[in-house]
Amino acid sequence: MPVQQHQTGGAIVVDAGTGFAHSAIDLGFEALIPAAHQQGCACLVIRNSYNCGVLGYHVERLAEAGLVAFGFTNAPASIAPHGGHKALIGTNPLAFAVPGPDGPAFVIDQSASVVARSEVMTRAREGRALPLGWALDEAGEPTTDAEQAMRGTMVPSGGYKGFSAGLLVEVMAAALSGAMLGRHASAFSGTVGGPPRTGQCFVALSPVPFSDGMFDQRIHDLVLAITEQEVARLPGARRRKHRQQAEKSGVKIDSALVDRVRAITGSS
Amino acid sequence: MPVQQHQTGGAIVVDAGTGFAHSAIDLGFEALIPAAHQQGCACLVIRNSYNCGVLGYHVERLAEAGLVAFGFTNAPASIAPHGGHKALIGTNPLAFAVPGPDGPAFVIDQSASVVARSEVMTRAREGRALPLGWALDEAGEPTTDAEQAMRGTMVPSGGYKGFSAGLLVEVMAAALSGAMLGRHASAFSGTVGGPPRTGQCFVALSPVPFSDGMFDQRIHDLVLAITEQEVARLPGARRRKHRQQAEKSGVKIDSALVDRVRAITGSS
Repeated sequence: MPVQQHQTGGAIVVDAGTGFAHSAIDLGFEALIPAAHQQGCACLVIRNSYNCGVLGYHVERLAEAGLVAFGFTNAPASIAPHGGHKALIGTNPLAFAVPGPDGPAFVIDQSASVVARSEVMTRAREGRALPLGWALDEAGEPTTDAEQAMRGTMVPSGGYKGFSAGLLVEVMAAALSGAMLGRHASAFSGTVGGPPRTGQCFVALSPVPFSDGMFDQRIHDLVLAITEQEVARLPGARRRKHRQQAEKSGVKIDSALVDRVRAITGSS
Repeated sequence: MPVQQHQTGGAIVVDAGTGFAHSAIDLGFEALIPAAHQQGCACLVIRNSYNCGVLGYHVERLAEAGLVAFGFTNAPASIAPHGGHKALIGTNPLAFAVPGPDGPAFVIDQSASVVARSEVMTRAREGRALPLGWALDEAGEPTTDAEQAMRGTMVPSGGYKGFSAGLLVEVMAAALSGAMLGRHASAFSGTVGGPPRTGQCFVALSPVPFSDGMFDQRIHDLVLAITEQEVARLPGARRRKHRQQAEKSGVKIDSALVDRVRAITGSS
C-alpha cells in the first residue's frame, strides 16, 4: 500500500511500500495537481517503488489537468559512464508533456539509451540479432549478440550527452527521492535480491502565473510549424495513433505469449 | 533594466527589457533561491531577454546555494524537426546542477545539437571545414562546408531524441515564459530585426523536504562510481579543470581577436 509521507509547500513525498508505482502515482497526483495550480510549481517524489510502465502515460495525465509536466524514473543499471564500461545507471527515461486547448498538445517519452532495454530483452528471448550500435558486451565492445548485450551495457543516445541525460534522471528519480540507485537495485524481472525499491519523480508547472496568457499561442505556433512540414511529426504522435487504432480494432498478441499467460493463470 | 513582474507562490517572472540576460537572472535568483528553500520547488522565467552566455554557469550558482537546478534557454532557430528540413528551434541547451557537501557535485550543460552552433560559426569565420555529421545544408543534406551549414540546419544529437530535447527547452524557455520563439527571433549577432527577445527558465529544488536526509549519500555514491572508473569522468569536470587552470595561468587569446577588440575600443 502506498503512503503519503508528507507535503511541505510544493514538495510531496510518497512511499510506494515496494509495490507497483501506479497506485503510488495515483495517490501522489491527488496532492501534486492542486499544489501545482496553487503555487505555480510543485514536485512529487516516490521511493520504495517499482517499474511504472510507460512513463509518458503518467505525464500525459498531468497535461490533461492543464500542467506542463516532467517525469523521471530510474531502473537497474545498464548504461556505463562516458569512457567507462561498468553499468552505473538504468536506461532511465525522461518524459515531458505539454497541455493544449483540447487535451495534451504533445508528449515526449524517451530513454537515455539508443533503444529501450526491453527491445534487447525481446530479441534475446526470440534469439534474434541486434543492429550494431544498440549495445556493448561485458568488455565494452560493440555487439550484435542479444545474449552478450544482456550481460553488457546499453549504448547511450548521442554518446556522452545520453549518459548525462540518464544521470540527470538518476538524480531526480533516486537521489532526490531517497530511492535505491540503479547500481544497487535488483532486476525488475524475477524476485532475486528482493524488491528493486527504485523511484519516480514528477515536476508539474501551471502556465497561468508564468506566461502572461501567451502559452497557448506559443504552443499552437510550435505544433503548427512541425505538422506543416510534410514528413516531420510531433513527438508521441505515432504512439497516440497506435493507441486510437487499438481502441477501435483491439491489440494483436503473439500466440506464444497467450500460451504463457494461460499456463500461469491455469486458464485454457 | 530588468524588472520583476510578480511572484505567485513558487512562480517568479522577470522581464529583461531586451537587455543581456545576466542582470535579469541576478534579479530573479534573489527571489528564486529563498522560494525554493521555503517551498521545496520554485521556478523563474525570464522574457524579453538575450543570450545568457554559458548556461551551466548560472545553474552552478544555484547548486552553490544548495539547490538541484535546471536551466533552459532558447535561441534563434537552427534545428529542423525530425524528418523535416526547415529550422524550428535553436540549439537550445539544457543545464543541470547538483549540490554536494563542498560546492556543486557536478554540472551538466549540453546543447540539443551534436555540437554548439558557435563551433560552426568559428569554422565559417576561419574558413575551415566541418566534420561530417555536424550540420545539414539548406536542402537538408549533410555538409562539411561551414558557410553552407550556416544557411542550413544543425544536426540534433541522437536524431529525433535531440530534437525532442530542444523542443522541451523551447517550451520551458519561450512558451512558459511568454518569450519569443526561436523561429521568430532575430539573430544574436548584429542588430538586424531588433532585439531577439528570447527567454530563460530555471527550476530549483531543495533536497531537504524530499529525500529524508538521503540525498548527499546518494550523490556521493554516484560521483564515486564514476570517478573510480579509470577513463570515465564527471559531466563538467573538464570545464572545471580548465577554469582552475585559467584562474592560475591566465587565458590564451588569439592575437587577431585582440586586434579586433582594440579596433572597436580604440585602444592600442
